[in-house]
Amino acid sequence: MDDFAADPSHPRYQSLLKRHQLEKAAEKGMLAGSALIAHGRGEAYDYLLGEQTIPSAMLATEFALNQLINAKKCVISLNGNTTALAGIELMKIASAIDCPVEVNIFYRTPERMKVLLEHLESINEKFGLNVKILGANPDSLIPGLEGPRAKCCKDGIFSSEVILVPLEDGDRCEALVAMGKTVIVVDLNPLSRSSRMASITIVDEISRVARNMLSLIENDDQLNDGENYENAKTIQKSILYITKSLSEKYDLQI
Amino acid sequence: MDDFAADPSHPRYQSLLKRHQLEKAAEKGMLAGSALIAHGRGEAYDYLLGEQTIPSAMLATEFALNQLINAKKCVISLNGNTTALAGIELMKIASAIDCPVEVNIFYRTPERMKVLLEHLESINEKFGLNVKILGANPDSLIPGLEGPRAKCCKDGIFSSEVILVPLEDGDRCEALVAMGKTVIVVDLNPLSRSSRMASITIVDEISRVARNMLSLIENDDQLNDGENYENAKTIQKSILYITKSLSEKYDLQI
Repeated sequence: MDDFAADPSHPRYQSLLKRHQLEKAAEKGMLAGSALIAHGRGEAYDYLLGEQTIPSAMLATEFALNQLINAKKCVISLNGNTTALAGIELMKIASAIDCPVEVNIFYRTPERMKVLLEHLESINEKFGLNVKILGANPDSLIPGLEGPRAKCCKDGIFSSEVILVPLEDGDRCEALVAMGKTVIVVDLNPLSRSSRMASITIVDEISRVARNMLSLIENDDQLNDGENYENAKTIQKSILYITKSLSEKYDLQI
Repeated sequence: MDDFAADPSHPRYQSLLKRHQLEKAAEKGMLAGSALIAHGRGEAYDYLLGEQTIPSAMLATEFALNQLINAKKCVISLNGNTTALAGIELMKIASAIDCPVEVNIFYRTPERMKVLLEHLESINEKFGLNVKILGANPDSLIPGLEGPRAKCCKDGIFSSEVILVPLEDGDRCEALVAMGKTVIVVDLNPLSRSSRMASITIVDEISRVARNMLSLIENDDQLNDGENYENAKTIQKSILYITKSLSEKYDLQI
Protein backbone atom coordinates (compact mmCIF):
# COMPACT_ATOMS: atom_id res chain seq x y z
CA MET A 1 0.00 0.00 0.00
CA ASP A 2 2.16 2.86 -1.35
CA ASP A 3 3.22 5.03 1.58
CA PHE A 4 1.43 3.19 4.38
CA ALA A 5 4.11 2.09 6.80
CA ALA A 6 2.32 0.57 9.80
CA ASP A 7 3.43 -2.83 11.02
CA PRO A 8 0.92 -5.55 10.00
CA SER A 9 1.39 -7.15 13.43
CA HIS A 10 0.05 -3.98 15.12
CA PRO A 11 -3.24 -4.90 16.83
CA ARG A 12 -4.99 -2.01 15.12
CA TYR A 13 -3.36 -2.53 11.71
CA GLN A 14 -6.62 -3.07 9.80
CA SER A 15 -8.21 -0.04 11.42
CA LEU A 16 -5.15 2.14 10.69
CA LEU A 17 -5.04 0.87 7.10
CA LYS A 18 -8.68 1.84 6.56
CA ARG A 19 -8.04 5.33 7.94
CA HIS A 20 -5.09 5.66 5.58
CA GLN A 21 -7.21 4.55 2.61
CA LEU A 22 -9.80 7.19 3.47
CA GLU A 23 -7.21 9.92 3.91
CA LYS A 24 -5.79 9.10 0.48
CA ALA A 25 -9.29 9.11 -1.00
CA ALA A 26 -10.00 12.48 0.62
CA GLU A 27 -6.81 13.90 -0.91
CA LYS A 28 -7.96 12.67 -4.33
CA GLY A 29 -11.34 14.43 -3.89
CA MET A 30 -13.36 11.21 -3.69
CA LEU A 31 -15.08 12.03 -0.40
CA ALA A 32 -17.69 14.50 0.83
CA GLY A 33 -16.94 16.57 3.93
CA SER A 34 -19.00 14.30 6.15
CA ALA A 35 -17.29 11.09 4.98
CA LEU A 36 -14.60 10.96 7.65
CA ILE A 37 -17.13 11.61 10.42
CA ALA A 38 -19.29 8.79 9.06
CA HIS A 39 -16.26 6.51 9.01
CA GLY A 40 -15.57 7.38 12.65
CA ARG A 41 -19.11 6.39 13.62
CA GLY A 42 -18.51 3.08 11.86
CA GLU A 43 -15.23 2.60 13.72
CA ALA A 44 -17.02 2.95 17.05
CA TYR A 45 -19.64 0.31 16.21
CA ASP A 46 -16.98 -1.97 14.72
CA TYR A 47 -15.04 -1.75 17.97
CA LEU A 48 -18.15 -2.90 19.82
CA LEU A 49 -18.47 -5.81 17.39
CA GLY A 50 -14.86 -6.81 18.06
CA GLU A 51 -13.83 -5.76 14.53
CA GLN A 52 -14.91 -9.12 13.17
CA THR A 53 -17.70 -10.67 11.14
CA ILE A 54 -20.18 -12.05 13.65
CA PRO A 55 -22.18 -15.19 12.71
CA SER A 56 -25.47 -13.36 12.04
CA ALA A 57 -23.63 -10.98 9.68
CA MET A 58 -22.09 -13.93 7.81
CA LEU A 59 -25.54 -15.46 7.40
CA ALA A 60 -26.89 -12.17 6.02
CA THR A 61 -23.87 -11.92 3.69
CA GLU A 62 -24.52 -15.40 2.28
CA PHE A 63 -28.19 -14.70 1.77
CA ALA A 64 -27.44 -11.36 0.17
CA LEU A 65 -24.99 -12.91 -2.26
CA ASN A 66 -27.53 -15.59 -3.08
CA GLN A 67 -30.10 -12.89 -3.89
CA LEU A 68 -27.61 -11.02 -6.08
CA ILE A 69 -26.62 -14.14 -8.00
CA ASN A 70 -30.20 -15.26 -8.57
CA ALA A 71 -31.64 -11.86 -9.47
CA LYS A 72 -32.84 -11.28 -13.00
CA LYS A 73 -31.05 -7.98 -12.77
CA CYS A 74 -28.88 -6.57 -10.01
CA VAL A 75 -26.42 -3.73 -9.44
CA ILE A 76 -23.79 -2.70 -6.91
CA SER A 77 -24.09 0.94 -5.88
CA LEU A 78 -20.83 2.66 -4.95
CA ASN A 79 -20.18 5.88 -3.06
CA GLY A 80 -16.92 7.51 -1.94
CA ASN A 81 -16.28 5.59 1.26
CA THR A 82 -17.27 2.26 -0.28
CA THR A 83 -14.99 2.84 -3.25
CA ALA A 84 -12.09 3.86 -0.99
CA LEU A 85 -12.46 0.92 1.37
CA ALA A 86 -13.57 -1.93 -0.92
CA GLY A 87 -13.61 -0.65 -4.49
CA ILE A 88 -11.33 -3.39 -5.83
CA GLU A 89 -13.19 -6.25 -4.13
CA LEU A 90 -16.63 -4.95 -5.13
CA MET A 91 -15.53 -4.56 -8.74
CA LYS A 92 -14.26 -8.17 -8.68
CA ILE A 93 -17.62 -9.30 -7.26
CA ALA A 94 -19.48 -7.37 -9.98
CA SER A 95 -17.26 -9.06 -12.57
CA ALA A 96 -17.85 -12.51 -11.08
CA ILE A 97 -21.63 -12.19 -10.92
CA ASP A 98 -21.77 -10.21 -14.16
CA CYS A 99 -23.55 -7.07 -13.01
CA PRO A 100 -22.78 -3.38 -13.42
CA VAL A 101 -21.71 -0.98 -10.69
CA GLU A 102 -23.28 2.46 -10.37
CA VAL A 103 -21.64 5.46 -8.75
CA ASN A 104 -24.39 7.01 -6.72
CA ILE A 105 -23.42 9.63 -4.18
CA PHE A 106 -25.42 11.65 -1.73
CA TYR A 107 -23.56 14.93 -2.25
CA ARG A 108 -23.27 14.76 -6.04
CA THR A 109 -20.79 17.15 -7.62
CA PRO A 110 -19.32 16.78 -11.12
CA GLU A 111 -15.78 16.78 -9.65
CA ARG A 112 -16.40 13.92 -7.22
CA MET A 113 -18.30 11.90 -9.83
CA LYS A 114 -15.38 12.29 -12.26
CA VAL A 115 -12.75 11.21 -9.72
CA LEU A 116 -14.80 8.19 -8.63
CA LEU A 117 -15.60 7.07 -12.19
CA GLU A 118 -11.94 7.37 -13.20
CA HIS A 119 -10.83 5.46 -10.14
CA LEU A 120 -13.19 2.59 -10.96
CA GLU A 121 -12.05 2.59 -14.60
CA SER A 122 -8.48 2.25 -13.37
CA ILE A 123 -9.51 -0.83 -11.34
CA ASN A 124 -11.02 -2.35 -14.51
CA GLU A 125 -7.72 -1.78 -16.29
CA LYS A 126 -5.41 -2.86 -13.49
CA PHE A 127 -7.21 -6.15 -12.82
CA GLY A 128 -8.24 -6.94 -16.39
CA LEU A 129 -11.94 -6.61 -15.57
CA ASN A 130 -14.68 -5.46 -17.87
CA VAL A 131 -17.29 -4.23 -15.40
CA LYS A 132 -19.84 -1.78 -16.74
CA ILE A 133 -19.54 1.44 -14.74
CA LEU A 134 -22.73 3.49 -14.57
CA GLY A 135 -23.43 6.84 -12.98
CA ALA A 136 -21.94 9.39 -15.37
CA ASN A 137 -25.24 10.06 -17.13
CA PRO A 138 -28.17 9.53 -14.79
CA ASP A 139 -31.36 9.32 -16.84
CA SER A 140 -33.91 8.30 -14.19
CA LEU A 141 -35.20 9.50 -10.86
CA ILE A 142 -35.92 7.52 -7.70
CA PRO A 143 -39.54 8.34 -6.80
CA GLY A 144 -39.99 10.10 -3.47
CA LEU A 145 -36.60 11.82 -3.41
CA GLU A 146 -35.80 15.38 -4.37
CA GLY A 147 -32.84 17.06 -6.02
CA PRO A 148 -29.55 15.41 -6.99
CA ARG A 149 -30.13 12.61 -4.48
CA ALA A 150 -32.94 11.24 -6.68
CA LYS A 151 -30.72 10.76 -9.74
CA CYS A 152 -29.93 7.25 -10.92
CA CYS A 153 -29.39 5.23 -14.09
CA LYS A 154 -32.17 3.40 -15.88
CA ASP A 155 -29.83 0.51 -16.72
CA GLY A 156 -28.64 0.24 -13.14
CA ILE A 157 -30.44 1.11 -9.92
CA PHE A 158 -33.72 2.08 -11.58
CA SER A 159 -34.38 -1.25 -13.27
CA SER A 160 -32.62 -3.69 -10.92
CA GLU A 161 -34.66 -5.90 -8.66
CA VAL A 162 -31.77 -6.51 -6.25
CA ILE A 163 -29.39 -3.72 -5.20
CA LEU A 164 -26.33 -3.85 -2.99
CA VAL A 165 -26.06 -0.35 -1.51
CA PRO A 166 -23.36 -0.34 1.18
CA LEU A 167 -23.20 2.64 3.57
CA GLU A 168 -26.44 4.08 2.21
CA ASP A 169 -28.41 7.06 3.48
CA GLY A 170 -31.68 6.21 5.26
CA ASP A 171 -33.96 8.24 2.99
CA ARG A 172 -32.61 6.69 -0.16
CA CYS A 173 -32.73 3.21 1.32
CA GLU A 174 -36.39 3.76 2.19
CA ALA A 175 -37.18 5.11 -1.28
CA LEU A 176 -35.56 2.09 -2.96
CA VAL A 177 -37.46 -0.34 -0.75
CA ALA A 178 -40.66 1.54 -1.62
CA MET A 179 -39.91 0.82 -5.31
CA GLY A 180 -40.29 -2.88 -4.46
CA LYS A 181 -36.61 -3.72 -4.72
CA THR A 182 -34.59 -6.09 -2.55
CA VAL A 183 -32.24 -3.62 -0.91
CA ILE A 184 -29.06 -5.00 0.67
CA VAL A 185 -27.40 -2.58 3.07
CA VAL A 186 -24.03 -2.86 4.79
CA ASP A 187 -24.04 -0.75 7.95
CA LEU A 188 -22.08 -1.12 11.19
CA ASN A 189 -24.84 0.62 13.14
CA PRO A 190 -27.68 -1.87 13.59
CA LEU A 191 -29.99 0.91 14.78
CA SER A 192 -29.56 3.24 11.81
CA ARG A 193 -32.55 4.01 9.63
CA SER A 194 -30.86 2.27 6.71
CA SER A 195 -30.34 -0.84 8.81
CA ARG A 196 -33.96 -0.89 9.89
CA MET A 197 -35.34 -0.09 6.42
CA ALA A 198 -33.29 -2.56 4.35
CA SER A 199 -34.50 -5.92 3.03
CA ILE A 200 -31.19 -7.48 4.08
CA THR A 201 -28.95 -5.75 6.62
CA ILE A 202 -25.34 -6.84 6.89
CA VAL A 203 -24.05 -5.39 10.18
CA ASP A 204 -20.38 -5.59 9.28
CA GLU A 205 -17.52 -3.55 7.88
CA ILE A 206 -17.67 -3.17 4.09
CA SER A 207 -14.18 -4.45 3.26
CA ARG A 208 -14.76 -7.58 5.35
CA VAL A 209 -18.16 -8.11 3.69
CA ALA A 210 -16.63 -7.75 0.23
CA ARG A 211 -13.82 -10.17 1.06
CA ASN A 212 -16.32 -12.65 2.52
CA MET A 213 -18.45 -12.47 -0.62
CA LEU A 214 -15.41 -12.93 -2.86
CA SER A 215 -14.30 -15.92 -0.85
CA LEU A 216 -17.79 -17.46 -1.03
CA ILE A 217 -17.76 -16.98 -4.81
CA GLU A 218 -14.24 -18.35 -5.25
CA ASN A 219 -14.95 -21.44 -3.15
CA ASP A 220 -18.27 -21.89 -4.92
CA ASP A 221 -19.84 -22.35 -1.48
CA GLN A 222 -23.38 -23.54 -1.00
CA LEU A 223 -25.19 -20.33 -0.05
CA ASN A 224 -27.92 -19.82 2.47
CA ASP A 225 -31.08 -19.70 0.37
CA GLY A 226 -32.82 -17.57 2.93
CA GLU A 227 -35.77 -19.89 3.31
CA ASN A 228 -35.97 -18.98 6.99
CA TYR A 229 -34.22 -15.65 6.76
CA GLU A 230 -35.70 -12.88 8.91
CA ASN A 231 -33.93 -9.56 8.72
CA ALA A 232 -35.22 -8.42 12.12
CA LYS A 233 -33.37 -11.36 13.67
CA THR A 234 -30.12 -10.34 11.97
CA ILE A 235 -30.45 -6.89 13.48
CA GLN A 236 -31.47 -8.16 16.89
CA LYS A 237 -28.57 -10.59 17.02
CA SER A 238 -26.07 -7.85 16.29
CA ILE A 239 -27.54 -5.68 19.05
CA LEU A 240 -27.44 -8.63 21.41
CA TYR A 241 -23.80 -9.23 20.47
CA ILE A 242 -22.91 -5.62 21.24
CA THR A 243 -24.70 -5.54 24.59
CA LYS A 244 -23.07 -8.84 25.62
CA SER A 245 -19.60 -7.70 24.63
CA LEU A 246 -20.09 -4.40 26.47
CA SER A 247 -21.28 -6.19 29.59
CA GLU A 248 -18.35 -8.60 29.47
CA LYS A 249 -15.85 -5.79 29.07
CA TYR A 250 -16.90 -4.39 32.39
CA ASP A 251 -18.38 -6.14 35.35
CA LEU A 252 -21.83 -4.63 35.63
CA GLN A 253 -22.59 -6.06 39.06
CA ILE A 254 -22.22 -2.86 41.04
CA MET B 1 -23.46 30.99 13.84
CA ASP B 2 -22.22 32.73 10.66
CA ASP B 3 -23.28 30.56 7.71
CA PHE B 4 -24.91 27.71 9.63
CA ALA B 5 -28.49 27.59 8.47
CA ALA B 6 -30.04 24.50 10.04
CA ASP B 7 -33.36 24.86 11.81
CA PRO B 8 -32.89 24.77 15.62
CA SER B 9 -36.06 22.68 15.87
CA HIS B 10 -34.44 19.93 13.77
CA PRO B 11 -34.09 16.86 16.01
CA ARG B 12 -30.41 16.57 15.14
CA TYR B 13 -29.67 20.31 15.35
CA GLN B 14 -27.00 20.03 18.05
CA SER B 15 -25.28 17.21 16.21
CA LEU B 16 -25.35 19.11 12.90
CA LEU B 17 -24.08 22.26 14.62
CA LYS B 18 -21.10 20.37 16.06
CA ARG B 19 -20.26 18.95 12.63
CA HIS B 20 -20.42 22.44 11.19
CA GLN B 21 -18.13 23.78 13.92
CA LEU B 22 -15.60 21.05 13.14
CA GLU B 23 -15.78 21.65 9.41
CA LYS B 24 -15.08 25.35 9.98
CA ALA B 25 -12.19 24.45 12.31
CA ALA B 26 -10.78 22.06 9.70
CA GLU B 27 -10.91 24.85 7.10
CA LYS B 28 -8.96 27.11 9.45
CA GLY B 29 -6.26 24.45 9.89
CA MET B 30 -7.07 23.77 13.54
CA LEU B 31 -7.51 20.01 13.18
CA ALA B 32 -5.29 17.02 12.45
CA GLY B 33 -6.33 14.58 9.72
CA SER B 34 -7.72 12.12 12.22
CA ALA B 35 -9.88 14.69 14.03
CA LEU B 36 -13.06 14.17 12.00
CA ILE B 37 -12.83 10.39 12.35
CA ALA B 38 -12.41 10.81 16.11
CA HIS B 39 -15.46 13.06 16.17
CA GLY B 40 -17.45 10.41 14.31
CA ARG B 41 -16.53 7.82 16.91
CA GLY B 42 -17.79 10.23 19.55
CA GLU B 43 -21.03 10.77 17.65
CA ALA B 44 -21.73 7.02 17.71
CA TYR B 45 -21.26 6.74 21.47
CA ASP B 46 -23.24 9.91 22.04
CA TYR B 47 -26.11 8.45 20.05
CA LEU B 48 -26.06 5.42 22.35
CA LEU B 49 -26.15 7.76 25.37
CA GLY B 50 -29.20 9.53 23.93
CA GLU B 51 -27.15 12.70 23.29
CA GLN B 52 -27.66 13.84 26.86
CA THR B 53 -25.78 14.13 30.13
CA ILE B 54 -26.60 10.99 32.10
CA PRO B 55 -26.71 11.24 35.93
CA SER B 56 -23.37 9.47 36.52
CA ALA B 57 -21.69 11.90 34.10
CA MET B 58 -23.19 14.88 35.96
CA LEU B 59 -21.85 13.50 39.23
CA ALA B 60 -18.39 13.11 37.70
CA THR B 61 -18.64 16.65 36.29
CA GLU B 62 -19.44 18.09 39.71
CA PHE B 63 -16.63 16.21 41.38
CA ALA B 64 -14.20 17.22 38.64
CA LEU B 65 -15.10 20.89 39.00
CA ASN B 66 -14.70 20.59 42.75
CA GLN B 67 -11.20 19.17 42.27
CA LEU B 68 -10.29 21.94 39.83
CA ILE B 69 -11.55 24.69 42.15
CA ASN B 70 -9.80 23.29 45.21
CA ALA B 71 -6.49 22.43 43.53
CA LYS B 72 -3.39 24.39 44.52
CA LYS B 73 -2.66 24.56 40.82
CA CYS B 74 -4.70 23.37 37.89
CA VAL B 75 -4.83 23.77 34.11
CA ILE B 76 -7.21 23.11 31.23
CA SER B 77 -5.54 21.35 28.29
CA LEU B 78 -6.96 22.17 24.85
CA ASN B 79 -6.57 20.39 21.53
CA GLY B 80 -8.15 21.09 18.14
CA ASN B 81 -11.49 19.34 18.58
CA THR B 82 -11.94 20.66 22.12
CA THR B 83 -11.21 24.21 21.00
CA ALA B 84 -13.59 23.91 18.05
CA LEU B 85 -16.45 22.46 20.08
CA ALA B 86 -16.12 24.19 23.45
CA GLY B 87 -13.29 26.72 23.23
CA ILE B 88 -15.41 29.66 24.39
CA GLU B 89 -16.96 27.83 27.34
CA LEU B 90 -13.66 26.35 28.52
CA MET B 91 -11.98 29.76 28.35
CA LYS B 92 -14.82 31.19 30.46
CA ILE B 93 -14.36 28.36 32.98
CA ALA B 94 -10.60 29.02 33.11
CA SER B 95 -11.35 32.68 33.73
CA ALA B 96 -13.87 31.88 36.48
CA ILE B 97 -11.60 29.50 38.36
CA ASP B 98 -8.50 31.54 37.58
CA CYS B 99 -6.34 28.96 35.86
CA PRO B 100 -4.39 28.95 32.58
CA VAL B 101 -5.23 26.92 29.50
CA GLU B 102 -2.52 25.04 27.60
CA VAL B 103 -2.68 24.11 23.93
CA ASN B 104 -1.39 20.58 23.84
CA ILE B 105 -1.92 18.60 20.66
CA PHE B 106 -0.99 15.09 19.69
CA TYR B 107 0.13 15.91 16.14
CA ARG B 108 2.04 19.09 16.92
CA THR B 109 2.90 21.28 13.96
CA PRO B 110 3.90 24.97 14.16
CA GLU B 111 1.00 25.86 11.81
CA ARG B 112 -1.71 24.19 13.90
CA MET B 113 -0.26 25.57 17.14
CA LYS B 114 -0.30 29.09 15.69
CA VAL B 115 -3.92 28.85 14.50
CA LEU B 116 -5.12 27.44 17.82
CA LEU B 117 -3.23 29.99 19.93
CA GLU B 118 -4.57 32.85 17.81
CA HIS B 119 -8.10 31.49 18.03
CA LEU B 120 -7.92 31.37 21.83
CA GLU B 121 -6.45 34.89 21.96
CA SER B 122 -9.42 36.06 19.92
CA ILE B 123 -11.78 34.52 22.51
CA ASN B 124 -9.95 36.43 25.26
CA GLU B 125 -10.48 39.65 23.30
CA LYS B 126 -14.06 39.01 22.24
CA PHE B 127 -15.31 38.14 25.72
CA GLY B 128 -13.09 40.49 27.70
CA LEU B 129 -11.26 37.62 29.40
CA ASN B 130 -7.68 37.57 30.54
CA VAL B 131 -6.92 33.88 30.54
CA LYS B 132 -3.24 32.94 30.34
CA ILE B 133 -2.73 30.87 27.21
CA LEU B 134 0.19 28.45 27.38
CA GLY B 135 1.61 26.08 24.78
CA ALA B 136 3.59 28.31 22.44
CA ASN B 137 6.90 27.61 24.16
CA PRO B 138 6.92 24.17 25.76
CA ASP B 139 9.84 23.95 28.18
CA SER B 140 9.19 20.62 29.88
CA LEU B 141 8.68 16.98 28.96
CA ILE B 142 6.11 14.50 30.26
CA PRO B 143 8.17 11.51 31.50
CA GLY B 144 7.51 8.25 29.66
CA LEU B 145 6.51 9.84 26.35
CA GLU B 146 8.66 10.32 23.29
CA GLY B 147 8.88 12.99 20.59
CA PRO B 148 6.57 16.01 20.23
CA ARG B 149 3.84 14.28 22.26
CA ALA B 150 5.97 14.67 25.41
CA LYS B 151 6.19 18.46 25.17
CA CYS B 152 4.38 20.59 27.74
CA CYS B 153 4.74 23.81 29.69
CA LYS B 154 6.33 23.96 33.13
CA ASP B 155 3.83 26.60 34.26
CA GLY B 156 0.89 24.53 33.01
CA ILE B 157 0.55 20.79 32.66
CA PHE B 158 3.96 19.97 34.13
CA SER B 159 3.42 21.61 37.52
CA SER B 160 -0.37 21.31 37.93
CA GLU B 161 -1.78 18.80 40.38
CA VAL B 162 -5.20 18.72 38.68
CA ILE B 163 -5.57 18.70 34.88
CA LEU B 164 -8.69 18.78 32.75
CA VAL B 165 -7.67 17.06 29.50
CA PRO B 166 -10.79 16.50 27.35
CA LEU B 167 -10.52 14.10 24.41
CA GLU B 168 -7.05 12.98 25.42
CA ASP B 169 -4.93 10.21 23.92
CA GLY B 170 -4.59 7.07 26.09
CA ASP B 171 -0.79 7.11 26.30
CA ARG B 172 -0.62 10.70 27.42
CA CYS B 173 -3.43 10.18 29.91
CA GLU B 174 -1.51 7.25 31.40
CA ALA B 175 1.74 9.23 31.54
CA LEU B 176 0.03 12.14 33.33
CA VAL B 177 -1.56 9.80 35.89
CA ALA B 178 1.89 8.23 36.43
CA MET B 179 3.17 11.72 37.36
CA GLY B 180 0.78 11.60 40.31
CA LYS B 181 -1.68 14.12 38.92
CA THR B 182 -5.46 14.08 39.18
CA VAL B 183 -6.36 13.65 35.50
CA ILE B 184 -9.89 14.56 34.44
CA VAL B 185 -10.84 13.14 31.05
CA VAL B 186 -13.94 13.81 28.95
CA ASP B 187 -14.55 10.88 26.62
CA LEU B 188 -17.77 9.55 25.10
CA ASN B 189 -16.31 6.05 24.87
CA PRO B 190 -16.40 4.57 28.37
CA LEU B 191 -14.15 1.71 27.25
CA SER B 192 -11.31 3.80 25.81
CA ARG B 193 -7.89 3.60 27.40
CA SER B 194 -8.18 7.25 28.42
CA SER B 195 -11.48 6.56 30.12
CA ARG B 196 -10.09 3.61 32.02
CA MET B 197 -6.80 5.35 32.94
CA ALA B 198 -8.19 8.68 34.14
CA SER B 199 -8.66 9.73 37.76
CA ILE B 200 -12.08 11.15 36.89
CA THR B 201 -13.85 10.11 33.68
CA ILE B 202 -16.70 12.23 32.40
CA VAL B 203 -18.53 10.09 29.82
CA ASP B 204 -20.23 12.98 28.06
CA GLU B 205 -19.88 15.32 25.10
CA ILE B 206 -17.36 18.13 25.71
CA SER B 207 -19.63 21.07 24.89
CA ARG B 208 -22.33 19.75 27.26
CA VAL B 209 -19.71 19.19 29.97
CA ALA B 210 -18.38 22.72 29.56
CA ARG B 211 -21.88 24.21 29.68
CA ASN B 212 -22.70 22.12 32.76
CA MET B 213 -19.56 23.32 34.53
CA LEU B 214 -20.28 26.94 33.63
CA SER B 215 -23.80 26.61 34.93
CA LEU B 216 -22.58 25.05 38.20
CA ILE B 217 -20.12 27.94 38.60
CA GLU B 218 -22.69 30.61 37.76
CA ASN B 219 -25.27 29.19 40.16
CA ASP B 220 -22.59 28.73 42.79
CA ASP B 221 -23.94 25.22 43.32
CA GLN B 222 -22.86 23.01 46.18
CA LEU B 223 -20.53 20.56 44.47
CA ASN B 224 -20.15 16.86 45.09
CA ASP B 225 -17.05 16.67 47.29
CA GLY B 226 -16.27 13.20 46.03
CA GLU B 227 -16.15 11.64 49.48
CA ASN B 228 -17.63 8.45 48.10
CA TYR B 229 -16.60 8.97 44.51
CA GLU B 230 -15.40 5.84 42.70
CA ASN B 231 -14.42 6.35 39.09
CA ALA B 232 -14.96 2.68 38.20
CA LYS B 233 -18.63 3.16 39.11
CA THR B 234 -18.92 6.17 36.83
CA ILE B 235 -17.62 4.09 33.95
CA GLN B 236 -19.75 1.07 34.80
CA LYS B 237 -22.89 3.17 35.03
CA SER B 238 -22.31 4.62 31.59
CA ILE B 239 -21.82 1.13 30.11
CA LEU B 240 -24.94 -0.05 31.89
CA TYR B 241 -26.85 2.93 30.47
CA ILE B 242 -25.72 2.11 26.93
CA THR B 243 -26.57 -1.59 27.17
CA LYS B 244 -30.00 -0.78 28.61
CA SER B 245 -30.78 1.77 25.95
CA LEU B 246 -29.65 -0.62 23.21
CA SER B 247 -31.81 -3.41 24.62
CA GLU B 248 -34.80 -1.13 24.87
CA LYS B 249 -34.38 0.05 21.28
CA TYR B 250 -34.88 -3.45 20.05
CA ASP B 251 -36.77 -6.28 21.64
CA LEU B 252 -34.08 -8.82 22.40
CA GLN B 253 -36.46 -11.66 23.21
CA ILE B 254 -36.00 -13.65 20.02
